[in-house]
Amino acid sequence: MSLAAARLERPEIRLPQPYLLFVGDVTEPGYAKTAFGLRDWAADRCVGELACSDDAVTTGLPRMSPSEAQARGARAMVIGVANPGGVIKPGWIPSLVAALEAGLDLIAGMHGRLEDVREIKAVADRLGRRLIDVRRPPPGIPIATGRRRSGKRLLTVGTDCALGKKYTALAIARAFRERGLDADFRATGQTGIMIAGGGIPMDAVVSDFEAGAAELLSPDAAPGHWDVIEGQGSLFHPAYAAVSLGLLHGSQPDVIVLCHEPGRERLLGYPDFPTPGLSEAIELNLSLGRMTNPEIRCAGVSFNTAAMSGAEADEVMARASRALGLPVADPMRGGPAFERLVEACLA
Amino acid sequence: MSLAAARLERPEIRLPQPYLLFVGDVTEPGYAKTAFGLRDWAADRCVGELACSDDAVTTGLPRMSPSEAQARGARAMVIGVANPGGVIKPGWIPSLVAALEAGLDLIAGMHGRLEDVREIKAVADRLGRRLIDVRRPPPGIPIATGRRRSGKRLLTVGTDCALGKKYTALAIARAFRERGLDADFRATGQTGIMIAGGGIPMDAVVSDFEAGAAELLSPDAAPGHWDVIEGQGSLFHPAYAAVSLGLLHGSQPDVIVLCHEPGRERLLGYPDFPTPGLSEAIELNLSLGRMTNPEIRCAGVSFNTAAMSGAEADEVMARASRALGLPVADPMRGGPAFERLVEACLA
Repeated sequence: MSLAAARLERPEIRLPQPYLLFVGDVTEPGYAKTAFGLRDWAADRCVGELACSDDAVTTGLPRMSPSEAQARGARAMVIGVANPGGVIKPGWIPSLVAALEAGLDLIAGMHGRLEDVREIKAVADRLGRRLIDVRRPPPGIPIATGRRRSGKRLLTVGTDCALGKKYTALAIARAFRERGLDADFRATGQTGIMIAGGGIPMDAVVSDFEAGAAELLSPDAAPGHWDVIEGQGSLFHPAYAAVSLGLLHGSQPDVIVLCHEPGRERLLGYPDFPTPGLSEAIELNLSLGRMTNPEIRCAGVSFNTAAMSGAEADEVMARASRALGLPVADPMRGGPAFERLVEACLA
Repeated sequence: MSLAAARLERPEIRLPQPYLLFVGDVTEPGYAKTAFGLRDWAADRCVGELACSDDAVTTGLPRMSPSEAQARGARAMVIGVANPGGVIKPGWIPSLVAALEAGLDLIAGMHGRLEDVREIKAVADRLGRRLIDVRRPPPGIPIATGRRRSGKRLLTVGTDCALGKKYTALAIARAFRERGLDADFRATGQTGIMIAGGGIPMDAVVSDFEAGAAELLSPDAAPGHWDVIEGQGSLFHPAYAAVSLGLLHGSQPDVIVLCHEPGRERLLGYPDFPTPGLSEAIELNLSLGRMTNPEIRCAGVSFNTAAMSGAEADEVMARASRALGLPVADPMRGGPAFERLVEACLA
């Protein structure tokens, strides 16, 4: 089978783009993280936003009706909010129905499912629109083969959850493309999938198929092509290490970048579990990753310094870099440190 | 919540026992492995067997009709055959319907599902009988907490798949009980679940919940109680290591026993992957297991020497035992070597 055919037949989620972003009635920006993430990382694939309340937050994209969005090329409306509980609120339904009637599919990644809302399901069925749940993995995922694949792969790994693995992968993929390289961001979680327009929600895959799903996500590619793969969880996490290990084995990364939040001394929500040391985390990822790629190496460390002043961030990054003998950078701050990290990935 | 209440509320599969074993029309004993496994390890919970062809294999248990089995206390009929493809053959349907009509539930663990056979589904629905698929995990599995639990746990781990982790756990649990200890075998795969009458099919659990399912499987228990947990896969397997790691973290074993088939130099079906060395396998399981139980230790090694003569088996086990400084035994051969392994588990 040719590479092109193999890519077409991959059973992964493919989302209709560009998007209209639905911010609903959310007044607290923290609950519209998905919309802001899409604005920040997929602005070229977002035509505008729709709110159903005048005091809703704004992404800064133009407000427009579903019909206007459709006229500007939008193919789907994304529910860009993640309220507590992850439910589809009754007040949203008129807007969701209007989007379907304007010719848009609906995309969501919440706990509550679009198809479980009777009115939405009925309209979608009548009009032949799709209700796409990005938390649901595609059918037909195979068992991993362990076979080495062509092309190059980078995986972001972490000392814990929720500290920047997705943003680091996005920033590195962008930096690779800015250097003229052929690079794809490979999404493994719901927000990443919405940004990329495709991917596999790795934590929702049945464990027997976890590494197989990761193999599927970054298939054979041209020798100079990079897949920059969004990491999940942490090998040091008492609940999620299985997800991380299946993703590591199936990704067969040539390069890992360790992601960490300096100052986080305990795993989020697991106060009995200390965050591992950076060297320890690098060593464990390399030793387990060697099984499917003996050439694996760590290019450096990504720090999430959002809670620090610039001077403080520079100081902790410089100190860690000296201690490890590796580049340490915050991709959201960029600058020479991040340039060094990117160069080390490509070295 | 009291321990008793916690146990009652665990969302795991609980099977109606005792069983009538269905051997169908199978003439090749290898395809009736489930029935033979139940005869060998759960004979006290099997009242007899049913064939639908005169030349079918026999487990040696008395042949009887579903009504006779029901009269002797049977509550379910187990499909004890695993033919190529795992399909429910049309010729079996009259026997399966007869079992339902005699008051028995049906239990299967094949690829083909009982409820997808229209005639079986209709009869079960009409009579209110259950069609139980042991490959389907129960709903409501929580995310792992990492919290240490009371009681003692032993997990069998392996250098590869299919080399004796289930039989080793069953033999150790039996040996513990013969010594007067309170011990439960905890099943993690379909045959083990049928033997134990309950358990969780770990490889079918969504990866985010893998360690949580393992926590559920061996809940808080009395200080002297042992849960002897059936291992799955291998940390060295390119497809299944995620299953093994989630099971290791969630089990929080105090003791591991490494299972190995001497002479197997490559992973089954993965000729590019060498079987790890015994010390290497022990070390990796201990170092990763320490995260949720810092007291974890390896009591010894279980060899599957079914392909060897007695003298050959004694020789390879003695040699490995000297090299490792640990007991090495084949639980199916028993004898003083196995006694030493059991004593080391309890030391």
